[in-house]
Amino acid sequence: MINNTHIASAFDRDLETIQALIMRMGGLVEAAIENSSQALLDGDVELANATRKSDKAIDALELQVNEEAAKVIALRQPIATDLRTVLSVFRISAALERVGDYAKNIAKRTEILADLHTVDGSAASLKRMSKAVQIMLNDALDAYIQRDAALAYDVRARDEEVDQMYNGLFREYLTHMMEDPRNITACMHLHFMAKNIERMGDLVTGIAEQVIYLVDGELPDEDRTKADITSTAKGGTV
Amino acid sequence: MINNTHIASAFDRDLETIQALIMRMGGLVEAAIENSSQALLDGDVELANATRKSDKAIDALELQVNEEAAKVIALRQPIATDLRTVLSVFRISAALERVGDYAKNIAKRTEILADLHTVDGSAASLKRMSKAVQIMLNDALDAYIQRDAALAYDVRARDEEVDQMYNGLFREYLTHMMEDPRNITACMHLHFMAKNIERMGDLVTGIAEQVIYLVDGELPDEDRTKADITSTAKGGTV
Repeated sequence: MINNTHIASAFDRDLETIQALIMRMGGLVEAAIENSSQALLDGDVELANATRKSDKAIDALELQVNEEAAKVIALRQPIATDLRTVLSVFRISAALERVGDYAKNIAKRTEILADLHTVDGSAASLKRMSKAVQIMLNDALDAYIQRDAALAYDVRARDEEVDQMYNGLFREYLTHMMEDPRNITACMHLHFMAKNIERMGDLVTGIAEQVIYLVDGELPDEDRTKADITSTAKGGTV
Repeated sequence: MINNTHIASAFDRDLETIQALIMRMGGLVEAAIENSSQALLDGDVELANATRKSDKAIDALELQVNEEAAKVIALRQPIATDLRTVLSVFRISAALERVGDYAKNIAKRTEILADLHTVDGSAASLKRMSKAVQIMLNDALDAYIQRDAALAYDVRARDEEVDQMYNGLFREYLTHMMEDPRNITACMHLHFMAKNIERMGDLVTGIAEQVIYLVDGELPDEDRTKADITSTAKGGTV
């Protein structure tokens, strides 16, 4: 009995170490989201460049998280809920790493846009969309640490708003391109940025769903209504 | 000693079961890549629709692979190389699932494109690019089963050609849009399709890198030269 308790608390200690690493990763990713869209808004090429470079630290943390998690599996040989908890670590860190990649990608395109024909108001809309995702990520990580399924469900619901913002931007950019061919190259890049932010929202939703899985023991029942309609819409109203 | 041998072969048997599931997943994903681009080439909405539906089977297999892998970890408690092998299963099945998602996405856009202004030659270029990725995937899975690092390195090198094809298409679509505004909506969708195929190539490269990791014990040393230059190019030559 004493032995079991000892093993259980060693596992918990290991898990806390890993969760602390995930929180550090999450902090860096949040900063990357914030900085990439701020750099776009201000046309700040230096900040964009710094954001790109910060991605290396995120990637390094993912590797560290995965190594620690593999070590815990090997050393503690967790089963049932404990195993599920360790396995979710791989998915959450992979999602964070990909969100970081998208932020890096946005920063790259900001550097290009600085030299292109300006499209009025486009940076402000992207910044709003990006902010919504950043808050979702913050809440998803809180939900993870506190094993708060209600908050996780709330995050998941908010992804629909992000998808709606994306749909609006898709139409807006098409209009700009049709109105003035000089907008075409810039709008292609802006469009990819919007799509990147929309994908970030999906990944954060994936983190929230991992939390729901950890708390409830299964993934949410039905598919969340998919509100990105641009891949099924004909764009005919533009 | 007898006991150890018994445990080792039980692990090997479990692993073979999982690898067989991954091969089935790989077969479905290859078919999805093939069918999505064929549907585009023929404007075959029915085939596109069937491709979309086939994605459910891929998703179900990923879940099954992950459950089996978790069961193996819990039951056999593998360490060192064996643990690494089981953990790579999660990454490979996740990559396959995402490639399947991209094929589904291409099929969705094919249905939209059927009703839009036609852009000459665009489907044929995408089909070529898609075929290159399909062969890469086939080889990556062969490399996985045979633990063939040389073949995996070859797959990784070929991703550069896919990136070059994408760069060419990026420029081509911009040109079409500037020449005739009626091309804009179709080209936006074609562009996303090209980007989806380029991302498939990245994911297949990730599978090849897992094989290298399994054989050599570490990921390839230096970053593969990244040949998608559209996110750093100014598009000024178009």
